[in-house]
Amino acid sequence: MSEKLVLHEYAASGNCYKVRLTAALLGIRIERREYDILKGETRTPEFLQKVNSNGRIPVLQAGDRFIPESNAACHYLADGSRLIPTDRFDHADMLRWMFWEQYNHEPNIATLRFWLHEIGMENLTEAQRLQVPLKREGGNAALKLMDEHLSGRDWFVADDISLADICLYAYSHVAEEGGFTLAGYPHVSRWIDRVQAQPNYLPISA
Amino acid sequence: MSEKLVLHEYAASGNCYKVRLTAALLGIRIERREYDILKGETRTPEFLQKVNSNGRIPVLQAGDRFIPESNAACHYLADGSRLIPTDRFDHADMLRWMFWEQYNHEPNIATLRFWLHEIGMENLTEAQRLQVPLKREGGNAALKLMDEHLSGRDWFVADDISLADICLYAYSHVAEEGGFTLAGYPHVSRWIDRVQAQPNYLPISA
Repeated sequence: MSEKLVLHEYAASGNCYKVRLTAALLGIRIERREYDILKGETRTPEFLQKVNSNGRIPVLQAGDRFIPESNAACHYLADGSRLIPTDRFDHADMLRWMFWEQYNHEPNIATLRFWLHEIGMENLTEAQRLQVPLKREGGNAALKLMDEHLSGRDWFVADDISLADICLYAYSHVAEEGGFTLAGYPHVSRWIDRVQAQPNYLPISA
Repeated sequence: MSEKLVLHEYAASGNCYKVRLTAALLGIRIERREYDILKGETRTPEFLQKVNSNGRIPVLQAGDRFIPESNAACHYLADGSRLIPTDRFDHADMLRWMFWEQYNHEPNIATLRFWLHEIGMENLTEAQRLQVPLKREGGNAALKLMDEHLSGRDWFVADDISLADICLYAYSHVAEEGGFTLAGYPHVSRWIDRVQAQPNYLPISA
């Protein structure tokens, strides 16, 4: 891509890391601009008007245009690359896992990680506290489903790494920061090793 | 597509309707198989093993393969059609709205519709009851964001209808069944009219 790419992000977010990891695996250079979400830096009038009316990161800026939603930003970066299957069913199957990630995985595993790791259990509202056991159950159900899917295969879609793996990896590999125990999911654990063995792999802390 | 298509569904679900509406607009014939989710018909061992390990509908069956997640099923049906832009940015922008729908729109508007319309407020758990005002606020924020986006344009992406419109339309046009007031969102209301004026439009009750 000839246009300049800027990732508007909060680096500790797994959603932002997805975009960095996709770019790294494909050898695409992106600039990074950090926002402190705990200080409301993505809710300023300027951010809402220019970058993302939804007030969230990550947003991938491509030239003077903006792509919110982590999985959409990954799709933009990887379009036409080996990380998106060309077969019609496999492409839909990849998107199936990416939509599943945003609906069944992220709201449980990422939210518990954020609450435990960044907000602190003692600072949760009553409505949030009541959701903790539900999110624990939902997160473990998600990890179990992934573990069963990976029991007979190396990657989520077809027989090679795709965006489905990258998008599911981002919060799975730090699930223990949300109080989950990965040792109970041996196929997920070995798949995590496989992602980390990819050429040009970039850790979340990089 | 030469293969036989079967939609495993619960017809009142907006997520299932998305798939039917996509097929209708494209003139694709699909068979329908109904499951009663209130009676647990998508949690049977057979369904979990054969159709969707996540125990949810819709699932689009294409030959002997299965595509869970409504927005992925729509992408499969519409691949190569006028409902998916070919431009790299527009394709990502369409997916951006589809991921936003599953994260910010559906969990608020569809869930309140399900709770009010199908479960009944008096049958909610304490954790659910505490979430009602948060989901009301989130759903109205989603409708407001859509209304602002549509204030200067006819469709969500580029200048024509795409899957982004279909996927957002499904629960938006029945938001009043979840206790939302569409009269407060005039641009959304006019966009609803535009979707309904499409050739081969199919109502949710059909």
